[in-house]
Amino acid sequence: MEKKAFQDYYPDDLSCCYGCGKHNEHGLQIKSYWDGDESVCVYTPRPYHTAIPGIVYGGLIASIIDCHSTGTAAAAKYRAENRAMDTMPPLRFVTASLNVNYLLPTPLDCPLEVRGRVKEVKGRKVVVESRLIAGGKVCARGEVVAVQVPEHMMPVNARQ
Amino acid sequence: MEKKAFQDYYPDDLSCCYGCGKHNEHGLQIKSYWDGDESVCVYTPRPYHTAIPGIVYGGLIASIIDCHSTGTAAAAKYRAENRAMDTMPPLRFVTASLNVNYLLPTPLDCPLEVRGRVKEVKGRKVVVESRLIAGGKVCARGEVVAVQVPEHMMPVNARQ
Repeated sequence: MEKKAFQDYYPDDLSCCYGCGKHNEHGLQIKSYWDGDESVCVYTPRPYHTAIPGIVYGGLIASIIDCHSTGTAAAAKYRAENRAMDTMPPLRFVTASLNVNYLLPTPLDCPLEVRGRVKEVKGRKVVVESRLIAGGKVCARGEVVAVQVPEHMMPVNARQ
Repeated sequence: MEKKAFQDYYPDDLSCCYGCGKHNEHGLQIKSYWDGDESVCVYTPRPYHTAIPGIVYGGLIASIIDCHSTGTAAAAKYRAENRAMDTMPPLRFVTASLNVNYLLPTPLDCPLEVRGRVKEVKGRKVVVESRLIAGGKVCARGEVVAVQVPEHMMPVNARQ
């Protein structure tokens, strides 16, 4: 049985995200999981996700880091509360700031692995650092400040 | 006659970018222009470019800011060299770092305007600050450090 990704626990009404929503048929549908203290996501870019020939588009890298980090933020907050991810009320995070450093051109012909580490969990804020690995090399590093979606923006059926 | 966008001057072999390449039929094909000392780009998100319902996906915002800023960097470098954008050799920039602060939820039902300002032109590096306006409000701010594509990565027919 395949284990569930962080994003698979998002309430249906909050699963339309272009980057990671399981109900967005046009989107990337990235999936994130714990691997010990790190979170991991693997995404294989499409041939048209190009910047210059052979190199992955930086906006795609930013998008994967973004969604992987908000997913990691939610998972980290459940952990901090000693709660399973299928317990109510659901936790969903959005991005307050996104910072990506592009260290090397990222090759387009291989899977991209993003590995995240939780730097801080404080109140409604979670900070996630990440690195993107392609072809065995760290090609980009990211830092996302994620904030918990306010209750009034959560769908009615997901509130307690 | 419609004026040409910054991206329309990119060499054909470097016009495959998912964000702004005129030859990427799957991409966003954003277009940037000067408006005095500012550069401007208007993009209308597709209905599926959503984060949570009614709100624009942050990765799309990052992507538009990214490509608008590298386009602005190229245009600024031509200006700094007192050259028209159709003169050889062509200048093309990629992103070294991207920083986006999401200030307000960005509404999905209106055009997004990104306005850039050149903060620094120094050697092969150009720094561009930008703000994204939707529904009359500044919803995000960005800063991109762009670097000129090295000659050895430029297509052979675009080198001098």
